[in-house]
Amino acid sequence: MSSIKDSVHDHITVEGVAEELLDTPAVQRLRRIKQLGTAEFVYPSANHTRFEHSLGVFHLASRALSHLGIEGPQAERVRAAALLHDIGHTPFSHNTEEVLERYENKSHDDVHDLIRGGEVERVLVRNDLDPGRVADLVAGDGELGQLVSGELDVDRMDYLVRDAHHTGVPYGTIDHGRLVRELRYVGGDLVLAEGNVQTAESLLLARALMNPTVYSHHVARISKAMLRRATDELVGAGGVPAAEFRRWDDHDLMVALRDDPATTGYARRLDDRDLFKRAVWAEYADVPEGLIEADHGEIAAYERDIAERADVDPSEVIVDVPGEPSMEESTTQVVVNGEVRRLGSQSTLVAALRKAQHEQWRLGVYAPEEDADAVGAAAEDVLGLDLDALVVDVRKGMHQTLDEYGA
Amino acid sequence: MSSIKDSVHDHITVEGVAEELLDTPAVQRLRRIKQLGTAEFVYPSANHTRFEHSLGVFHLASRALSHLGIEGPQAERVRAAALLHDIGHTPFSHNTEEVLERYENKSHDDVHDLIRGGEVERVLVRNDLDPGRVADLVAGDGELGQLVSGELDVDRMDYLVRDAHHTGVPYGTIDHGRLVRELRYVGGDLVLAEGNVQTAESLLLARALMNPTVYSHHVARISKAMLRRATDELVGAGGVPAAEFRRWDDHDLMVALRDDPATTGYARRLDDRDLFKRAVWAEYADVPEGLIEADHGEIAAYERDIAERADVDPSEVIVDVPGEPSMEESTTQVVVNGEVRRLGSQSTLVAALRKAQHEQWRLGVYAPEEDADAVGAAAEDVLGLDLDALVVDVRKGMHQTLDEYGA
Amino acid sequence: MSSIKDSVHDHITVEGVAEELLDTPAVQRLRRIKQLGTAEFVYPSANHTRFEHSLGVFHLASRALSHLGIEGPQAERVRAAALLHDIGHTPFSHNTEEVLERYENKSHDDVHDLIRGGEVERVLVRNDLDPGRVADLVAGDGELGQLVSGELDVDRMDYLVRDAHHTGVPYGTIDHGRLVRELRYVGGDLVLAEGNVQTAESLLLARALMNPTVYSHHVARISKAMLRRATDELVGAGGVPAAEFRRWDDHDLMVALRDDPATTGYARRLDDRDLFKRAVWAEYADVPEGLIEADHGEIAAYERDIAERADVDPSEVIVDVPGEPSMEESTTQVVVNGEVRRLGSQSTLVAALRKAQHEQWRLGVYAPEEDADAVGAAAEDVLGLDLDALVVDVRKGMHQTLDEYGA
Amino acid sequence: MSSIKDSVHDHITVEGVAEELLDTPAVQRLRRIKQLGTAEFVYPSANHTRFEHSLGVFHLASRALSHLGIEGPQAERVRAAALLHDIGHTPFSHNTEEVLERYENKSHDDVHDLIRGGEVERVLVRNDLDPGRVADLVAGDGELGQLVSGELDVDRMDYLVRDAHHTGVPYGTIDHGRLVRELRYVGGDLVLAEGNVQTAESLLLARALMNPTVYSHHVARISKAMLRRATDELVGAGGVPAAEFRRWDDHDLMVALRDDPATTGYARRLDDRDLFKRAVWAEYADVPEGLIEADHGEIAAYERDIAERADVDPSEVIVDVPGEPSMEESTTQVVVNGEVRRLGSQSTLVAALRKAQHEQWRLGVYAPEEDADAVGAAAEDVLGLDLDALVVDVRKGMHQTLDEYGA
Repeated sequence: MSSIKDSVHDHITVEGVAEELLDTPAVQRLRRIKQLGTAEFVYPSANHTRFEHSLGVFHLASRALSHLGIEGPQAERVRAAALLHDIGHTPFSHNTEEVLERYENKSHDDVHDLIRGGEVERVLVRNDLDPGRVADLVAGDGELGQLVSGELDVDRMDYLVRDAHHTGVPYGTIDHGRLVRELRYVGGDLVLAEGNVQTAESLLLARALMNPTVYSHHVARISKAMLRRATDELVGAGGVPAAEFRRWDDHDLMVALRDDPATTGYARRLDDRDLFKRAVWAEYADVPEGLIEADHGEIAAYERDIAERADVDPSEVIVDVPGEPSMEESTTQVVVNGEVRRLGSQSTLVAALRKAQHEQWRLGVYAPEEDADAVGAAAEDVLGLDLDALVVDVRKGMHQTLDEYGA
Repeated sequence: MSSIKDSVHDHITVEGVAEELLDTPAVQRLRRIKQLGTAEFVYPSANHTRFEHSLGVFHLASRALSHLGIEGPQAERVRAAALLHDIGHTPFSHNTEEVLERYENKSHDDVHDLIRGGEVERVLVRNDLDPGRVADLVAGDGELGQLVSGELDVDRMDYLVRDAHHTGVPYGTIDHGRLVRELRYVGGDLVLAEGNVQTAESLLLARALMNPTVYSHHVARISKAMLRRATDELVGAGGVPAAEFRRWDDHDLMVALRDDPATTGYARRLDDRDLFKRAVWAEYADVPEGLIEADHGEIAAYERDIAERADVDPSEVIVDVPGEPSMEESTTQVVVNGEVRRLGSQSTLVAALRKAQHEQWRLGVYAPEEDADAVGAAAEDVLGLDLDALVVDVRKGMHQTLDEYGA
Repeated sequence: MSSIKDSVHDHITVEGVAEELLDTPAVQRLRRIKQLGTAEFVYPSANHTRFEHSLGVFHLASRALSHLGIEGPQAERVRAAALLHDIGHTPFSHNTEEVLERYENKSHDDVHDLIRGGEVERVLVRNDLDPGRVADLVAGDGELGQLVSGELDVDRMDYLVRDAHHTGVPYGTIDHGRLVRELRYVGGDLVLAEGNVQTAESLLLARALMNPTVYSHHVARISKAMLRRATDELVGAGGVPAAEFRRWDDHDLMVALRDDPATTGYARRLDDRDLFKRAVWAEYADVPEGLIEADHGEIAAYERDIAERADVDPSEVIVDVPGEPSMEESTTQVVVNGEVRRLGSQSTLVAALRKAQHEQWRLGVYAPEEDADAVGAAAEDVLGLDLDALVVDVRKGMHQTLDEYGA
Repeated sequence: MSSIKDSVHDHITVEGVAEELLDTPAVQRLRRIKQLGTAEFVYPSANHTRFEHSLGVFHLASRALSHLGIEGPQAERVRAAALLHDIGHTPFSHNTEEVLERYENKSHDDVHDLIRGGEVERVLVRNDLDPGRVADLVAGDGELGQLVSGELDVDRMDYLVRDAHHTGVPYGTIDHGRLVRELRYVGGDLVLAEGNVQTAESLLLARALMNPTVYSHHVARISKAMLRRATDELVGAGGVPAAEFRRWDDHDLMVALRDDPATTGYARRLDDRDLFKRAVWAEYADVPEGLIEADHGEIAAYERDIAERADVDPSEVIVDVPGEPSMEESTTQVVVNGEVRRLGSQSTLVAALRKAQHEQWRLGVYAPEEDADAVGAAAEDVLGLDLDALVVDVRKGMHQTLDEYGA
């Protein structure tokens, strides 16, 4: 039995199979993967890693299982899955996940092949746990998989609190102690017990406040887009096999980006925090239909066209199109007056937050400061944007009175 | 210059007229007035006082003035008003404020007469500050009065954080550091600078989460209603002049309630936390028109009728009708793209939260546990409520699966 | 099962006999007894009560029992004792305990008679727990009594953290999670497991830092001495039987002090924080032998003599002689290299802290500001103090450069 | 003016020359240097960087200067030095500083050559600040240099609080708000004002508690020794010039260690947290005279001898000899009764803590688990240690009952 001190949950007791899994290279690698990628460009204290987050998720899973009265091998499998749930992350976490998806056709929670044949598999087998079933739980499959990955998973409960703690932003402070105690299984579905509509809403609100402030802060988005583009050059050009990249940590990626002539410029900019600026920052309504669904190849073509029209190097134009806003918490199920209901049908807030997400949605086109005007004008034409004067002014900083770091 | 350690703001430096005001009986009395009245019946740590809150409001006012570049006598008046802003509170703060309003026709922020002729006046005059103008600021009058009492006042910024800290509830954690820095005066109005729609929304959300969890928790409401009813008996019966009651502290009121035969029963129940239960807990839509506007006399008549019909003592029925839900933060003004706009016109959330307030609104009828059924049935008839079966069941605890203290 | 939100331990789960005990008048009364008495005169946020502390002690006792593997009725008795351990406190806790000791010859942890014949006894008997044995545990008797009252008791672990949290002082932050996990029983003694000399030392250091900063801060001592003196007048004069006083809460005492002509002056001063000042503040070495052991009667005689010589009213002189410094933590037992050893024999720090305690020890004589010089001079003569010039100057404020509240 | 959110100090306002310095590569590099090197092997949350610490030191320096009434160019120089004070750190901070000292004969606070000719120099000159004088302040030279580097510097005030916050250890929580307010200059020396002996002691105590728990935790020491040894191989073998190494960040070093055949084994072990174990853990008294003063060459010779005698590869033996315990805080100066005195002459605690440091001092010899017995025996002979049976047993884990992570 180990006791590990955590800045969020204080002492975390690790025992059973989890204690052995902790020492595997796959889990230890998470010590070197930043939880929030480039968010530390905005919030300098946000250097926490997937390792401490995984410990936190394991801790909350253990407590939830205990409250739910689930024991034995099935509980042990869930605890293993909780600790392992992020071993599929690429360097800088979500920042480079698209590269993995594009070249390996995998998301970070598809870990069957990472477990197979390695130390993790040996530990699981030695503890009479089926590795495939553990990997299924990581992917959110099955009743118990909902605890690891789903609308009410303990992953979310940990990261909202942890990201708030480490950024210093006061908005993600949900009551995870209460959430974990109020979980119930009803007809195979993980739900919140009676009297918890507001508890469920607080999860949504925490995300609704953390999103614009942290996860989608424009400086975080710009730096993430630069890192993703650079990684794409590196892996896409074939110098680095995607399967190898998948096992890298933050050190590997940063040094590789510096060493490759095609990416060293991006690396220098990221190292010095000498970031691209917004050439375009367009609202949802101003973006022509179809553009949101454009695939990687189409976006790359747009970037080349814009660069050509603006007469800049193609590496100096990044088009950053977020997907359709989603809100998976809206399907959270809560017991209300004895019946299980979806939060979306129960909460007035859900619709409002969904609308707010659309209002906050922005398409970005980024370029070096000195080229932002030219690139912005070119992008309006190429992408067929219908910007009004005010939005254009953002790139001139005319309406930027907020004195935040990097804003 | 004094430096006072505060559990919320760490060191608070008190200087100038504030340092002298601190030692007046009017301010010292606030050490003996609980900030949240009977909320400690639900949250045992919520024993903070109006005194520490007043220091916090003074502190935030000082910082806001400094950010706004306001100095000299007008700043000194605001600082004095910040420290004095709650000297008009009756025992247990808002819990007994209605009694004051009924018998003295004053709200807690009408402090002209409290200042006049006393030590506070002497201190202000000695410092060349006009007592009447300071009292005006407490009431929120004038441009600078908005800082002390208004949609963006520092009062709210302190109490949301302080009440969250002392209840242990994680929901009121706004970013007061940022709020204070982003205040601006535009055309005589206090507004938030460009880029702060979400900052303004966070104030609303904090209140929207604190309201059901703390301020309107049903145990807080029941205990508050019992305390208010008992106080009303005491003051209304004429034994205690309202003007004297107004200067009492929590000690005075509790002992007086114990000593008076008409109120000793309530006092015993409050002391032992042997509270009335909900005989009725009716939604907004189930309450007949007009009832929400009923005045004190009409409510008292209903209570007598219900008691008679249920054959219980009149002192054992309390009808608790909250007013129409309001949301004064919705008029908060924010600069958006260079123009001052009302948050209510700018934020999708405002309408949603307004709707949520209506959904959370409840009319309560309270009675001793053993009489709750009879009183509930009588109240439905007398008040003309149209309750469906589920709501009636609340008083039977059938849908009360939440295991909170006192729920 | 109840879940109660606590500002220190977050959610506290109360079940079994404790849940019933919670609702007894004896425990509910603790909501109205301030944990630190008049410490809020220095630290305005220190308004926490014996009630929340008792819940915290119950919580830590439950966790310690679980780590120690102790179950069944003996564990239930310890949990009951933990929740009840402070029901013997008089108003303002330790501030008036001497009055209880003088007139009733009881300390606050002698609760046999308080349990007997009341609601607490009924609850215990209904749960098949022997009331006498529970009261014994409160007094620290027996092996398990050490958990409730002893060098390593959970009482201390809660109050150090709680008092630090509520004063805002950063010094009492021990690692109670670790302390509770490292408790062991060896040969009937409660000890700390191997590897915990520094853990044990941290308890001592926390007290060593909290003592001068909070518990013995001179403003806390002066206000406490005034409250104790006033209470003594009230109870000693016979108007209020000591046995009745013992059941009072803070409200009762403050109102009684205001109402009695003999004590109303003290009450007014305490209400307005218009405190006596230090007329003498003498070091241990300057105090003649014998004075430290003087009993209440002798001290009272000194006070009268000093008053007479200084020509002031006897009520305006208070002589405050702390007892010999003690350090019960020095007998804490820790396993070192497989053997149980006393911390005092193991830790270099213990001797140093003991010496520091002597250095910080001060005899105080307090009087109204305008009489402090006369009373100081008279006290030097009457008490036979040998003060050097510097110490005398304290009362003139000549070496008081620290700008703390009330210093 | 920028406002940066910090997890310790909340909002930090950066203006003037500091805002320009923030964007220099020398300061941005600190984002990639872990503050506590390998301490995250014990405390997984301890991933904070020299960058956020530098911002914190800048913040406290600004506040100290403001309290001291120091303004103009000399204040601006101190603020610049505060922000720059750690640009001389090598990867993983103190972990590899010995390598720098050995090959470059520089400590981390000798930054004249790092400033010269670079972006930092250009920024300083553009702001009319002399780069040489700023570098002098970093080294602690001159009256104002004491604020940046000395017994009462703001560096210490930030790191004690920050390291406690990020490890989750509750022991480093000094009252920096008070410390900064109580600084004074007396006769050219930075001292604490009257009434602050305990404030000064709290700095010492914080370090005395943080030292064994964090900074000298044996797992932190082992991992640090392995990292230092590996770095020494890399730089010492001549493959990497020391002057180049000095400008590396954590990414560079870890990848270089992996890539070099001579160090890849260490890198693999550090990546997987597959650490050496203690073959010897000897107390101060058991170590022969002279060994503590042995230089790098002598230690290396001992390591080779031990390896040969134990028949293991020389890379598998590390001898880790800490220097003589020091306590620079003991020379802290405090005003006592109007005179400036050294804390060491004033505080009983200083001597005790000095003694405790000697008691906690340990010489370590580390080796792979399977070789620890053989290496331990060989080391006893080669180093001439006089170990008693108990100390030897440490390496067999016989007295290791503490279940901490990695203990």
